[in-house]
Amino acid sequence: MTQIQDLADYATTLGRNARKASAALVRTGGQLRTQALLRMAAAIREQSATLQAANQKDLSAATANNLSAAMIDRLTLDGARVEKIAAAVEEVAAQADPVGEVVTGYVRPNGLRIQKVRVPLGVVAIIYEARPNVTSDAAALCLKSGNACILRGGKESFHTNIAIGSAISSALSSVGLDPNAVQLVETTDRALVPALLKLDEYIDVVIPRGGESLIRAVVKESTIPVIKHYTGNCHVYVHSRCDHAMAESIVLNAKLQRPGVCNAAETILFDAAVAGELVPRIGGKLVEAGCEVRGCEKTRALLPAAKAATEDDWRTEYLDRIVAMRVVDGLEAAVEHINRYGSRHTDAILTADLAAAEAFAQAVDAASVMVNCSTRFSDGGEYGLGAEIGISTDKLHARGPMGAADLTTYKYVVTGSGQIRT
Amino acid sequence: MTQIQDLADYATTLGRNARKASAALVRTGGQLRTQALLRMAAAIREQSATLQAANQKDLSAATANNLSAAMIDRLTLDGARVEKIAAAVEEVAAQADPVGEVVTGYVRPNGLRIQKVRVPLGVVAIIYEARPNVTSDAAALCLKSGNACILRGGKESFHTNIAIGSAISSALSSVGLDPNAVQLVETTDRALVPALLKLDEYIDVVIPRGGESLIRAVVKESTIPVIKHYTGNCHVYVHSRCDHAMAESIVLNAKLQRPGVCNAAETILFDAAVAGELVPRIGGKLVEAGCEVRGCEKTRALLPAAKAATEDDWRTEYLDRIVAMRVVDGLEAAVEHINRYGSRHTDAILTADLAAAEAFAQAVDAASVMVNCSTRFSDGGEYGLGAEIGISTDKLHARGPMGAADLTTYKYVVTGSGQIRT
Repeated sequence: MTQIQDLADYATTLGRNARKASAALVRTGGQLRTQALLRMAAAIREQSATLQAANQKDLSAATANNLSAAMIDRLTLDGARVEKIAAAVEEVAAQADPVGEVVTGYVRPNGLRIQKVRVPLGVVAIIYEARPNVTSDAAALCLKSGNACILRGGKESFHTNIAIGSAISSALSSVGLDPNAVQLVETTDRALVPALLKLDEYIDVVIPRGGESLIRAVVKESTIPVIKHYTGNCHVYVHSRCDHAMAESIVLNAKLQRPGVCNAAETILFDAAVAGELVPRIGGKLVEAGCEVRGCEKTRALLPAAKAATEDDWRTEYLDRIVAMRVVDGLEAAVEHINRYGSRHTDAILTADLAAAEAFAQAVDAASVMVNCSTRFSDGGEYGLGAEIGISTDKLHARGPMGAADLTTYKYVVTGSGQIRT
Repeated sequence: MTQIQDLADYATTLGRNARKASAALVRTGGQLRTQALLRMAAAIREQSATLQAANQKDLSAATANNLSAAMIDRLTLDGARVEKIAAAVEEVAAQADPVGEVVTGYVRPNGLRIQKVRVPLGVVAIIYEARPNVTSDAAALCLKSGNACILRGGKESFHTNIAIGSAISSALSSVGLDPNAVQLVETTDRALVPALLKLDEYIDVVIPRGGESLIRAVVKESTIPVIKHYTGNCHVYVHSRCDHAMAESIVLNAKLQRPGVCNAAETILFDAAVAGELVPRIGGKLVEAGCEVRGCEKTRALLPAAKAATEDDWRTEYLDRIVAMRVVDGLEAAVEHINRYGSRHTDAILTADLAAAEAFAQAVDAASVMVNCSTRFSDGGEYGLGAEIGISTDKLHARGPMGAADLTTYKYVVTGSGQIRT
């Protein structure tokens, strides 16, 4: 990797290059950006062998460093995965252009034409870990939305990321775009990150993707606005009036289909009216599937296999085959538990009762509220946004899964014929 | 004023009360919120004498403290102004309800119904100076959008603000809403503000309104997201192809109609092609009107009355009868100047050329771009938003003048019939 002497200087150069590329990108039409994305996909395919060779370097280092099999699997880039990466870029290319959309437009009594027009944010920095596909996904979504980006991936996938970045640069150049529209950070030195996060003059928004500690570190250091989610402490509330078979199916899916991700369920709340039947039935299935249950006293009375839950359990994102369970006295108590302990990511109610569904959807303060479906659907792809740049549990700007349109802002364009204010 | 012993404790109480009121407000319908607003307006009218008596206390203190005549004028609340305040609340009441709007809604191939629904942000804190009408405007916009708010006004208008707050509380109670939905900070102790700005557990967004130093202090102390603008360094670019009479009329209006506000022009850029005629003509009128001109060398050659501008002048928001002037070689140079020195608030082009208007609107990075009209129109009222809660030069969440809808976020409500992810 490149030896970089002065990190602050290098960070500033990245920022300045990105700002310059952004000023040009703002003036491009969607057609050129789409063409660049298609060239990106083609370049990734053409350079498949080069990408895999670079990936081998990362895999050798990973093996030498005793990374877990799961980590190595996430890191691995074979021919099929390269094809998937290229196809994802083409999917983004096929989406409608968010830039230039007239969000609202009207004429004022004095004849001024007011238009609120969607425009790129400018420069987006993304700080992420592990998976190489984030590099191409992030680059594609930023380019789609007319933003320049600075990508700082994890050191585990350094060589792979640089190789993907080089394929992207060649594609940008080939259509006459500034290759600095997508810049990969060419050092794994951790000290670069704080320097980058101070460049509020050049960078408009930072999106960290990874574990909670990475995200907290970014928020702490950054003088640039950050869009993020810390954790996904997701709940499923099994209401008194629910289809029992559906409840079993959804709870098992929400907890176990992929326990290591942010939209997996962590706490199941059983309404007292159905706990007697459903705690043993669903809890039993979870235990059978190798899931550890930590329950309140009432849960434990109904499911002897459950360990005692502490206050901490209500706040924990296990990301594992562990689940917390609590018996609650009705919808209000469920809402109170969720709004108190939840992380505002995704919470579900399972109910046949319309009023209960509506009250829950209104009162639960979360980016996504699910009614009669698994929390696992809280995802950009599942919402039809194409690739996702992240999931936000913030309330400002963007909430929930974020696609290309979430990387835009708007400006007012006001057109008159000589009006002055009196 | 109330003696408050423990400020951190008092701040926490405000935060906790607001969060509780917010949880109830989220569940109210628009009809009840509208009714509350109409009662607020009525209470303000009914208590006009009380409000004016409280205002007298502030005015006496202002006179004793030798406040400027302009400050005293802004502070003064007479019968006519009370009526104006009440009418403004009624205008907000008459607006469409932003809460509950389905921003987008669609059905996914697996049958999931996805709805992106507009919801209140939660708790809004507003830190502001001087004018008492901000108290009722801010309370009205927050209530309209279903938010609880904490209002911390300037010490100059303390008694007036508390009296308005008390009228609001009585109105809220009279329709059965929690009076803590609108809380006035009952101390002028400055140490309360930093304590308030740390309550990210209870407060969702902070909006500072006032001078740049107030806003910088808020940004520095706050762990809560802030929406703001620091300054309004607004430009008017007089393009080579423009109606000369229109240029004169708009430049004079933008600079002089009300020099002390953020949307007044601070720098006029003359295209070299028309500078020879327009710098003396428009510059002369400005000088005649008592405006100091600070110009580049070319400006000074054409307008001997102009003083020499320094690099600092390009960055300065004068808020006064002073203007900077520069002759630029074409549109690209104008855009470069604006994007380099501007504050992204409001910039205008005066031109008869369609391509120039479009290129300027696209390339200038500002919340509002004006074509052939005065920068002074950059205002919530002029844009038809009703009262405004502020103007944002940030790019995230809201940009430009902010109305009630800008105090909302959205949540995804996903409704299924038992779907699980496979």
